[in-house]
Amino acid sequence: MSDTLSDTLALTQQLIALPSVTPHDHGCQRLIAERLAPCGFQADYLNFEDVENLWLRRGTEGPVFCFAGHTDVVPTGPLTAWDSPPFQPDIRDGLLYGRGAADMKGSIAAFVVAAENFVREYPQHQGSIALLITSDEEGPSKYGTVKVVETLEARQEKITWCLVGEPSSSQQLGDIIKNGRRGSLNAKLTVQGKQGHVAYPQLADNPIHRVAPALAELAAEVWDHGNAFFPPTSFQISNLNAGTGANNVIPGSLEALINFRFSTELTEEEIKQRTTTILNKYVKNYSLEWSLSGQPFLTARGKLVAATVKAIQEILNIETELSTSGGTSDGRFIAPTGAEVLELGPCNASIHQINEYVNINDLSKLTRIYQRILEHLLL
Amino acid sequence: MSDTLSDTLALTQQLIALPSVTPHDHGCQRLIAERLAPCGFQADYLNFEDVENLWLRRGTEGPVFCFAGHTDVVPTGPLTAWDSPPFQPDIRDGLLYGRGAADMKGSIAAFVVAAENFVREYPQHQGSIALLITSDEEGPSKYGTVKVVETLEARQEKITWCLVGEPSSSQQLGDIIKNGRRGSLNAKLTVQGKQGHVAYPQLADNPIHRVAPALAELAAEVWDHGNAFFPPTSFQISNLNAGTGANNVIPGSLEALINFRFSTELTEEEIKQRTTTILNKYVKNYSLEWSLSGQPFLTARGKLVAATVKAIQEILNIETELSTSGGTSDGRFIAPTGAEVLELGPCNASIHQINEYVNINDLSKLTRIYQRILEHLLL
Repeated sequence: MSDTLSDTLALTQQLIALPSVTPHDHGCQRLIAERLAPCGFQADYLNFEDVENLWLRRGTEGPVFCFAGHTDVVPTGPLTAWDSPPFQPDIRDGLLYGRGAADMKGSIAAFVVAAENFVREYPQHQGSIALLITSDEEGPSKYGTVKVVETLEARQEKITWCLVGEPSSSQQLGDIIKNGRRGSLNAKLTVQGKQGHVAYPQLADNPIHRVAPALAELAAEVWDHGNAFFPPTSFQISNLNAGTGANNVIPGSLEALINFRFSTELTEEEIKQRTTTILNKYVKNYSLEWSLSGQPFLTARGKLVAATVKAIQEILNIETELSTSGGTSDGRFIAPTGAEVLELGPCNASIHQINEYVNINDLSKLTRIYQRILEHLLL
Repeated sequence: MSDTLSDTLALTQQLIALPSVTPHDHGCQRLIAERLAPCGFQADYLNFEDVENLWLRRGTEGPVFCFAGHTDVVPTGPLTAWDSPPFQPDIRDGLLYGRGAADMKGSIAAFVVAAENFVREYPQHQGSIALLITSDEEGPSKYGTVKVVETLEARQEKITWCLVGEPSSSQQLGDIIKNGRRGSLNAKLTVQGKQGHVAYPQLADNPIHRVAPALAELAAEVWDHGNAFFPPTSFQISNLNAGTGANNVIPGSLEALINFRFSTELTEEEIKQRTTTILNKYVKNYSLEWSLSGQPFLTARGKLVAATVKAIQEILNIETELSTSGGTSDGRFIAPTGAEVLELGPCNASIHQINEYVNINDLSKLTRIYQRILEHLLL
């Protein structure tokens, strides 16, 4: 076990030392590919625009088990705020500090070491093992996983089970795994009125007054009640702006940014239609620019969930909780291909923050869980 | 009559040539004072902070007839947009162009020439004639008329009748005079919520959602029905801002600027109370910063109205209309002293615009109307 610990830890340290701020990979993917080449993993570098992606695969048969993740990290924020330089991995009190330690270079190192150990022990395993690594998960997510998935689909190369290494754990390693994510739908609402002087309201048309009851109704609307896996769909107005700054001018237009996080109980089209129906009751001259950030996806209980829950039980001796809460992840791009998708990674308390860290014992345990999942599915 | 025309026109041109952009007087008041000194007007320069004010009075007895106005003008806007330089008076097709031509250097020139002519003809007139001229009517209106009125009140110097030279006319000279103005009450509404990620709405409190139904109710409220002199009180939201710019962040606070233009059917206190009652139904953590821009005032039919209506009938042969519509004017500071206050000036179609102008025949007619009002009241 001490080998596993030192292997995953050492690789995490190597990866943290490469300052791969999104969308840059900074050599992480080459390091991973070279490391797994002796175990029979074929590397396919799938770069799009300024984004580097890596598809590694061992074996040609199905089923295909895929580890998915990203080498890019969010910016460091002010360097002086860090207790140790963010790209110089530093261990203090059993915690490994550095940007990307938890999100998600620790998981990637655990993927690699778990795959190495598994292949060394079971070189004749069934199916294939793959890694799908991108460098733009923390950015616009336009030329990363989404493009790799398109490429695989074009080749008719299917992923059966996909384990995303996002830091899903909350209070302790393995307490939460994510078996789906809500959809995310954005819109920019622009309401046209007619500018004028507040002293002559009859000559103007105040878009704030027009839209206020519509916004009130949208905010009060019960969109759905969620279901066994999803919380109810939520509607939020994130930005609302109107006015010239002067207090004697009725504004000529108003702009609002709205976002839906939606469950599998609703479709994108239903949301658009219901939004329009409410707006039409109050507002005439308006436009809505919709942009879908991600469809909701759900991996119901199946082989991947069963194998993961069992592995966590065996290694950690705890019951894990299935959840679909939180923000989006690249799982949304993989699930539509028909793959079972699950997220399991370290605790997320420090991610995107100053002094990001991962518990080094958790790195070891995570490696063993990942290896055990492979054993449950590919033997 | 050709003398009156050339006198008022020449003085208007002299005043336009002085670039007295608010709050600067740029020598206008000294020119007026020196011009009226030979007619027996005593000058009292009442300067407060960066604002110059002039109080001119001929006579020590009551009743006191006062012409009131301002020498400051609004900024020119882009110089290249003007057909002739805004501070070089230019006559084209019977119109005198220049910044302040209509608002209100033409009226001021007409005050001066009317007073000169009247005094020359009737040196033994009853009561007193005064001019109250400020240089901050177009700005914050903090150190102008309001301070002069305080000074006069402290001296127990009373104005009986006040004719403000604001450009009240609409389609033709004298068609509308203003015998009052609505009150104007501003407030800054700040609503506190709790910032958060749109993916976790249960951990946040969206101030836009909280306030939307309150704004809808405020906008729909019938505040009063106005009365014989005033249109109904109007409520307008001029500015509304919330959000960080990011579409995944629920904002922590919201700010709105609101304005009431209110009739004499409502008091400031009633408006504040009703606004608070509506907000309290929906919003908990909010603050309102009120600022009163002016109480409503009304000069009912009396000697000043009668003299003015009659003078307009005599000189122009038209019926004039009494109105309380439009923005605020310095009349709001004079009316509370008990003076009868009326506004009569040239057409307002071009004020605050590029290529501001006044009809030069109207300058002559306005001078004759002003003089006739003096004759009706002080002989």
